[in-house]
Amino acid sequence: MHRVFIDADLPVAGDPLVIEGEEAHHALRVKRVRPGDALEILNGRGDIGVARVIDHPGPHAGSSQPRRHARPDTLNAVIEQRTHHAPVTPRLEVYSAVPKGARADDLVDHLAQIGAALWRPLSTRHGVVDPGSVRLDRLSRIAREAAKQSGRPWLMELDAAISLGRGVQAGGSAHERVALVIAHPGAPAYRSCGAGTVRLLIGPEAGFTPDEVELMVSAGAVAAEFGPHIMRIETAAVAAAAIVLNTERPSKAGTTVPPHTGS
Amino acid sequence: MHRVFIDADLPVAGDPLVIEGEEAHHALRVKRVRPGDALEILNGRGDIGVARVIDHPGPHAGSSQPRRHARPDTLNAVIEQRTHHAPVTPRLEVYSAVPKGARADDLVDHLAQIGAALWRPLSTRHGVVDPGSVRLDRLSRIAREAAKQSGRPWLMELDAAISLGRGVQAGGSAHERVALVIAHPGAPAYRSCGAGTVRLLIGPEAGFTPDEVELMVSAGAVAAEFGPHIMRIETAAVAAAAIVLNTERPSKAGTTVPPHTGS
Repeated sequence: MHRVFIDADLPVAGDPLVIEGEEAHHALRVKRVRPGDALEILNGRGDIGVARVIDHPGPHAGSSQPRRHARPDTLNAVIEQRTHHAPVTPRLEVYSAVPKGARADDLVDHLAQIGAALWRPLSTRHGVVDPGSVRLDRLSRIAREAAKQSGRPWLMELDAAISLGRGVQAGGSAHERVALVIAHPGAPAYRSCGAGTVRLLIGPEAGFTPDEVELMVSAGAVAAEFGPHIMRIETAAVAAAAIVLNTERPSKAGTTVPPHTGS
Repeated sequence: MHRVFIDADLPVAGDPLVIEGEEAHHALRVKRVRPGDALEILNGRGDIGVARVIDHPGPHAGSSQPRRHARPDTLNAVIEQRTHHAPVTPRLEVYSAVPKGARADDLVDHLAQIGAALWRPLSTRHGVVDPGSVRLDRLSRIAREAAKQSGRPWLMELDAAISLGRGVQAGGSAHERVALVIAHPGAPAYRSCGAGTVRLLIGPEAGFTPDEVELMVSAGAVAAEFGPHIMRIETAAVAAAAIVLNTERPSKAGTTVPPHTGS
C-alpha cells in the first residue's frame, strides 16, 4: 500500500481527504495510484489512516469511470479507517556531535527508522562540524521521508544545537525521570534503567574531554559501551539507539513465526 | 596516532617495517608523518603494532637529520611493540539482501565498525538488487578503511552471494553451533542464545516470502524483532548486529568513568 504523509489532523472515517502538492504528485505520477486504490495516510502526530482514492469528490465516485484528474496535483480520497498510536517508549533522545556532510543525513534517516524520538546537534570541545551550521529544514524532510518509509506514526523531532552544559539539564517535566547515558568506549554494557526518557550523549570522533565527562557525570550521567570497536559519530549513535530501545522495550507477547506446512 | 594498514604479517618488535603504496603516500603526503612519529599498524589478521618512523632503514636512524625521502611512497619504520588480539565473540555473520547503490557501501562500513565478522549478499525472492552484481573488491576496500578507522584487529570478511537454501546450512565446523536468527517485524525481542556463531538473516524491504520463512524455520532459525518500526535493509542489519553483539557480549569487568574532581 502506498504511503502518503499529510501535515494535518486526519479526518474521521467517512470524511473526505484532499492530498495536494508533492505527495499528490508522487502518488499520481510515480506510483500511478488510481481510483479505488487504498492509501496509508500518516501525519506524524500519531494518526494512521487508510484512505480510498476516488476520482473526484462526491458520493458517486466509486461508480464513475476513471478519468484524468482536472488538477493533476490533487488527489481526492475518503478516509475509511483511522487509528491513533502512542509514541515509542521509552522516549529516546539522541544528542550528538555532528558528523561531516552527508553522514548527518544518514544519521537522521537511520535514527528515525530505529525509533528515536528526537535528535539534537551537540556542541563539544572536539567537534569538527559547527552544530549551529546544521540545516534543520533539510533534515526535517529526511526525517519525514524516513517516517513514511518505516511507517512510524510520530515524526522524529529535530531541535536546535545545544551546549553540553545545557544538554545535561533535565528538560523533562518535573515528575519525569530523564536518564543520561554517555556512549563511552571501555565502559560496561548498557543496563536497563527503566526511565521514561533516555537521553544518549554521543561525542565527536576525538571523544569528550575529561572536563566534559566530569560535567556529564556530575549531572548524573552513566557511561556505557555500545560495541567492541571505536565507531564514528553516526555509527555509534545508531548502534546505541538500537541497543537502548531494545534493552528498554516494554515486554509484550510478540508473535512467533509459525512454521508453514505448505497448503 | 596515525593508523596504517598492511596486508602482511607484522614483524616482531625491533624488526624493520617498510610501508609502501597508498598507505605510505597517505601517511607522508596527507598526514605529514615525520621521522620519530609513532604509527599504529594493523594487518587485519589480529596483530596490532606500534612502529616508529625512521628516516631510512638502518641502526642510526634516530640520530640522523630528517631529510627528504628518496622514494616518496616508501616509509621506513621499526616495530616497537606488537600484540595479538582474538576476534570479537560471538562470531557475527550477516547474510542480507542487497541495498541499492551507495547503501551497500554504508552497510559494509557500519557493520565493520560495529564488529560483525562477515557480510554476505543473500539471494531472496523479493530482493531488488541482484546479489551476484555486488562488487566485492570495492566493498573490501571499504571494509579495510573501516577497520583502520575503528582500530579493529581483524578485517570483516566478505563472501560471495549465496542462496537462502545454502545460507541456512551450518557452514561452521562440526562442533560449532551456528544460531540462525531472522530479523522479522512482530517477532519477540532477541534473546541471548550463547552460540559461538550467530548468523543474522536480513530480508529485502518487501520481506521474506512464507516459503522462505518456512525454509529458515525448518533449518532451526529463530525470529526476532530489532526495532519498533519497519527498517530498510541496511538499517535493520546495523541495528540487529549492534543488538546481537551487545546481548551476547562476554561479561567483562569494564571500567566505569571516574567522576573527575578537578586537579
